[in-house]
Amino acid sequence: MDERTLLGQLLPLLHCGTDTVLGPGDDCAAVDTGSPELLLAAADHLIAGIHYLRDTTPPELAGAKLFNRNASDIAAMGGTPRWALLSLAANGCGNEELLAFAKGAALAAEHCGATLIGGDVAALPTPGLSASLTILGTVKKEEMICRKGANDGDLLCVTGCIGNAFHSGHHLTFLPRLKEGRFLAEHHLASAMMDISDGLLLDAARLAEMSCVQILLDPAKVPLRKDAVLPEALSDGEDYELLFTVPPEKLAELAGKMDFTVIGEIRSGTPGVCDPGGNNLLTGKTGYEHGKY
Amino acid sequence: MDERTLLGQLLPLLHCGTDTVLGPGDDCAAVDTGSPELLLAAADHLIAGIHYLRDTTPPELAGAKLFNRNASDIAAMGGTPRWALLSLAANGCGNEELLAFAKGAALAAEHCGATLIGGDVAALPTPGLSASLTILGTVKKEEMICRKGANDGDLLCVTGCIGNAFHSGHHLTFLPRLKEGRFLAEHHLASAMMDISDGLLLDAARLAEMSCVQILLDPAKVPLRKDAVLPEALSDGEDYELLFTVPPEKLAELAGKMDFTVIGEIRSGTPGVCDPGGNNLLTGKTGYEHGKY
Repeated sequence: MDERTLLGQLLPLLHCGTDTVLGPGDDCAAVDTGSPELLLAAADHLIAGIHYLRDTTPPELAGAKLFNRNASDIAAMGGTPRWALLSLAANGCGNEELLAFAKGAALAAEHCGATLIGGDVAALPTPGLSASLTILGTVKKEEMICRKGANDGDLLCVTGCIGNAFHSGHHLTFLPRLKEGRFLAEHHLASAMMDISDGLLLDAARLAEMSCVQILLDPAKVPLRKDAVLPEALSDGEDYELLFTVPPEKLAELAGKMDFTVIGEIRSGTPGVCDPGGNNLLTGKTGYEHGKY
Repeated sequence: MDERTLLGQLLPLLHCGTDTVLGPGDDCAAVDTGSPELLLAAADHLIAGIHYLRDTTPPELAGAKLFNRNASDIAAMGGTPRWALLSLAANGCGNEELLAFAKGAALAAEHCGATLIGGDVAALPTPGLSASLTILGTVKKEEMICRKGANDGDLLCVTGCIGNAFHSGHHLTFLPRLKEGRFLAEHHLASAMMDISDGLLLDAARLAEMSCVQILLDPAKVPLRKDAVLPEALSDGEDYELLFTVPPEKLAELAGKMDFTVIGEIRSGTPGVCDPGGNNLLTGKTGYEHGKY
């Protein structure tokens, strides 16, 4: 079963209370704690042999990556990361490796102004290292940006550049786009937003689906990382950039404020991602498949 | 490395902000979100082959156990569970197993008035199922009960009964002591509290250490589950009962309000756990060891 199918079957089982402002299905869930700000929450894994190569990756970098990919989900809502809990399950790892992994996560959190407040350590029955981190953040209700919200005529934008994230080392060294997410949120500039973790096309398709719109994406306009090539760059994943939509009249407010590129636009229509000629881009491999469960 | 050593080396690296009311080391962390109530957070694993037997345990029960052991940590602070995030890492599991596991966790949450609001699903590189759940709860600041706080002369109490949790099936079917935890918190009856998950003696030693007191525990007074025998019952773990201390003048307020037993008392002195004759009880196996990392 793939993640999409599993979630499709699981989500109808979840009965969210009235204090749940945004349930599963976006970059973060959002709940009302009675504070002036909403609480954002997300969880993500980092598993040796799946998300990084244990033999060649310093554990500090792996731990930092785990925190930062979670913080990227907070950025995608326009929020601020505040607290995190780290769950480590391991077998055959030395003291140094687990400590270094946790230290990497703790320092990455500190770098973002967040704190590692708890977690768990447990044994796996067979050799390996599987880590999961839950991140908590905050955002004002009126500033939160969701995957849903893109409208006909909005421009599709992306921060930074795309592709070649693995060989360039970007997947280990990126910093979450927190400043950009906050700017867009604070100034109410983005109608919809998410982060790009599983590949630009796959993630764009998710935004299109949640917003019930068609995306016209021009591959020629996609800013490529050094040595990245099309079409692989559109589906490789691990970019951790922000994909967002902006009403055209607000574009001028963004100019010079952040590193971003307009790569397409939004049209009313059946959810999907097409090129400017109307050709479906969601054929073949569109993004990162998470292996067999 | 054992969990204690790992945490001992990790905790000094964590720099908690002023919004962190209680950092790592208690049953939950507690943070100030700006709401009238504190936010409680804890994370715990459930790993096939370590915490349950995948071949003989219905996955719904395993998922429920994972939620309930986390909810037990919220109960131990006097709090109310509100939201949870479930992280599943698996390989070689069928659709039905993962869905049933998640459904078990979701229904257990619902039973406690809480909601599963998010999580993650990822692939393991080798066959197995490793799950981690982060629970979030709330508690009024003035009602929160910590491991620290037991005083000379307080009585040591335990809810329910102890021992034989594995063979009796209790470890899969227990319900977290949320009502008892809330009663103690709301009426300010307990000076210190924690849940018993790794064995009565080991957990009592942790409470003694955090409160900087000596515990005089009378093994003869410990209420035993059916077919449980001493001394194993004191160290087997998986009881998920509450261990708490009560100033003697408040004991009358507890009588008849919950199923509990006085099993010892608190003395000033070097942290540790002794029997009434002053013999150290922390010799040999005192609790559940979490295997090799």
